[in-house]
Amino acid sequence: MNFIENGSVTSPKGFKGAGICGSVKPSNTTKRDIALIASDVICNTAAVFTKNLVKSSAITVTQQNIENGKAQAVVVNSGNANTCNADGIEKAERMCELAAEALNIDKHDVIVASTGVIGQPLPIEPFEKSVPELGKIISEDGGTDVAEAIMTTDTVKKETAVSVEIGGKTVTIGAVAKGSGMIHINMGTMLSFVTTDAAISSEVLKSALSEAVEQSYNMVSVDGDTSTNDTLAILANGLAENEEIITRNEDYRAFTDALIAVCKSMAKKLAKDGEGATKLIVCTVSGAKTVIDAKGVAKAVICSSLVKAAMFGSDANWGRVLCAIGYSGCDVDVNLVDVSFKSKAGEIPVCKNGAGIEFSEELAKEILTENEIEIIVNLNDGDSNAEAYGCDLTYDYVKINGDYRT
Amino acid sequence: MNFIENGSVTSPKGFKGAGICGSVKPSNTTKRDIALIASDVICNTAAVFTKNLVKSSAITVTQQNIENGKAQAVVVNSGNANTCNADGIEKAERMCELAAEALNIDKHDVIVASTGVIGQPLPIEPFEKSVPELGKIISEDGGTDVAEAIMTTDTVKKETAVSVEIGGKTVTIGAVAKGSGMIHINMGTMLSFVTTDAAISSEVLKSALSEAVEQSYNMVSVDGDTSTNDTLAILANGLAENEEIITRNEDYRAFTDALIAVCKSMAKKLAKDGEGATKLIVCTVSGAKTVIDAKGVAKAVICSSLVKAAMFGSDANWGRVLCAIGYSGCDVDVNLVDVSFKSKAGEIPVCKNGAGIEFSEELAKEILTENEIEIIVNLNDGDSNAEAYGCDLTYDYVKINGDYRT
Repeated sequence: MNFIENGSVTSPKGFKGAGICGSVKPSNTTKRDIALIASDVICNTAAVFTKNLVKSSAITVTQQNIENGKAQAVVVNSGNANTCNADGIEKAERMCELAAEALNIDKHDVIVASTGVIGQPLPIEPFEKSVPELGKIISEDGGTDVAEAIMTTDTVKKETAVSVEIGGKTVTIGAVAKGSGMIHINMGTMLSFVTTDAAISSEVLKSALSEAVEQSYNMVSVDGDTSTNDTLAILANGLAENEEIITRNEDYRAFTDALIAVCKSMAKKLAKDGEGATKLIVCTVSGAKTVIDAKGVAKAVICSSLVKAAMFGSDANWGRVLCAIGYSGCDVDVNLVDVSFKSKAGEIPVCKNGAGIEFSEELAKEILTENEIEIIVNLNDGDSNAEAYGCDLTYDYVKINGDYRT
Repeated sequence: MNFIENGSVTSPKGFKGAGICGSVKPSNTTKRDIALIASDVICNTAAVFTKNLVKSSAITVTQQNIENGKAQAVVVNSGNANTCNADGIEKAERMCELAAEALNIDKHDVIVASTGVIGQPLPIEPFEKSVPELGKIISEDGGTDVAEAIMTTDTVKKETAVSVEIGGKTVTIGAVAKGSGMIHINMGTMLSFVTTDAAISSEVLKSALSEAVEQSYNMVSVDGDTSTNDTLAILANGLAENEEIITRNEDYRAFTDALIAVCKSMAKKLAKDGEGATKLIVCTVSGAKTVIDAKGVAKAVICSSLVKAAMFGSDANWGRVLCAIGYSGCDVDVNLVDVSFKSKAGEIPVCKNGAGIEFSEELAKEILTENEIEIIVNLNDGDSNAEAYGCDLTYDYVKINGDYRT
């Protein structure tokens, strides 16, 4: 399995993309905000959505459209969430219609997604004007424009692709995602679209996606809020010509491992670019009694506002890590817990058997000043492991969210 | 029932208090940081502690000491949590011994509590020197010094007292508390000591305390973190000479209602002075199917980082309120939900039946610029109500917690 340089959602065979500025938010006159992704042929598809009861109309329409496990295109916008609007369904359906017309496909084969402010009516004019335009310019080089078009408060584009040998054929998986606030564990967090030329049945694709989500997007938290618009969809068009994967065989394993790598890579990108974040925080837990305990502890640590603020201040305040472990609700013997901090500047143990040990504050500061920090927790009580991805809590998070609508 | 002007933990009959600067943190040479509260006679007692598995040694010792439902004094310090220290128990026991000697009481009748940095050895010398001193200066006017001594990042002292007629006698209840970070719902959050001259059995006192906690301290969240040192203890010395309350009769009701009023008042003080907070946020939920749903919704709203940041920015971003309701896990029909914002500047409906309605942004801004904001949620789906207390999320929260240890 190899990561592809400058890989994107259009890296797999037969996928095209495009993104332009349609001024969905009237004040936006420069940034791309409407995008199309399309496959040359119909795809098997699987998707995961927010578990929030308040849902974007885009999700309702997408759920209907992909009920048969098939899709061929994605139409997506930033700048408006199309959530809590009386006419939201109508607008989401119109977005699908416009995409279908532009691509000459069936409107029920379109996945629609929106992201942005909740509760403001979605203006449809930008789509009437821009979607036909997108149909004309869509191309194999358009992946990066899609990545830009779905950004909201993201500061960097998030895309990747890997290739993997499956049954003698090269299969490619590409992905695009946007963060970067309202992100929390155990949901289909954020918007992300994954494309692949693998031949794989939609049923098995669903299982692969669910495996991957568990270890990646579901282990990310930026701020503990769960968006109303979270959508993760994968489209598989079969153009790699591998023997179709229809059971959980060796090929399934190879495909799923590659998908996990893609999703983990995207999860880290999301965490690192969390709203206002200056640092990626990875919490690695080992020695747990069960995987559920390992995950629970890892998530509690990266979700703790106090741990996050300490990481922002490069403060080796390991007591807060212990505190988060203590309230995680997991089966933990706190008297066995070891904690270290690690970055490319080195690694420093700070807690052994649940109590503080002497350490060099100077070295700790040096380690924590880096922009990718690992918090290593060994529960010394079993064989299970997990990893969770978060970011620091900064002034800028507050600034960005103090006046988002204007 | 009346609130007493300048009421404190020493307002009830037979209670004395004192607080002095003992330099528990060597860098602190001015602020009071060690305190004593004592009753002239032995008290019935009840207490609630953090549910965090990582616990202060002070809690372990207190739990042993009050197992018989009796206590006569409280010794407490700020500046060091006495948590995750190998010799923590020994130090907590020594604090009790010193208090007992100073007050000439049994060391097993002492409640001990600590608050401050986790995982740094507690220096015992400040106590050897200061506790005997406290025993000499303790007085009926010392309540306010206790309130100061237990403050950490609190910006204001938190104390109150009420008087209530019970069986023809005037019963007084006083309270002191400290916040102001690491505060979360459903725990005995923070340190708080409640004193009363009521005659009430320790068993019934436990029940009254549990009723009060449910509606007050357990409905406060500052940052979603649960401290390792949370302790709420009540001491009842019987000097009001009311007929001892030993069943849940009318007197019990009067006493408990007064206790609820005291605890709610303290809960609001805690929320308003949450770390970095500029505003008290009260979420009032009505029309819920059950009290559990009402509480769940109220807590989800005041815990949402995005709602908290919007309140800081005086931004009427009601979509985030809906979003939090949606992920609360409560039984809610989102299409029935109404939301208004209210403060002393007025009230403004912003969402009706789960969708946005037109409103004056100008008036909304004016309302949200106040420092006590009510978010009114009507679920229109039942008869149950609840109220939760939180604060806004500000630059200062991050600043305070970015480098707490230094």
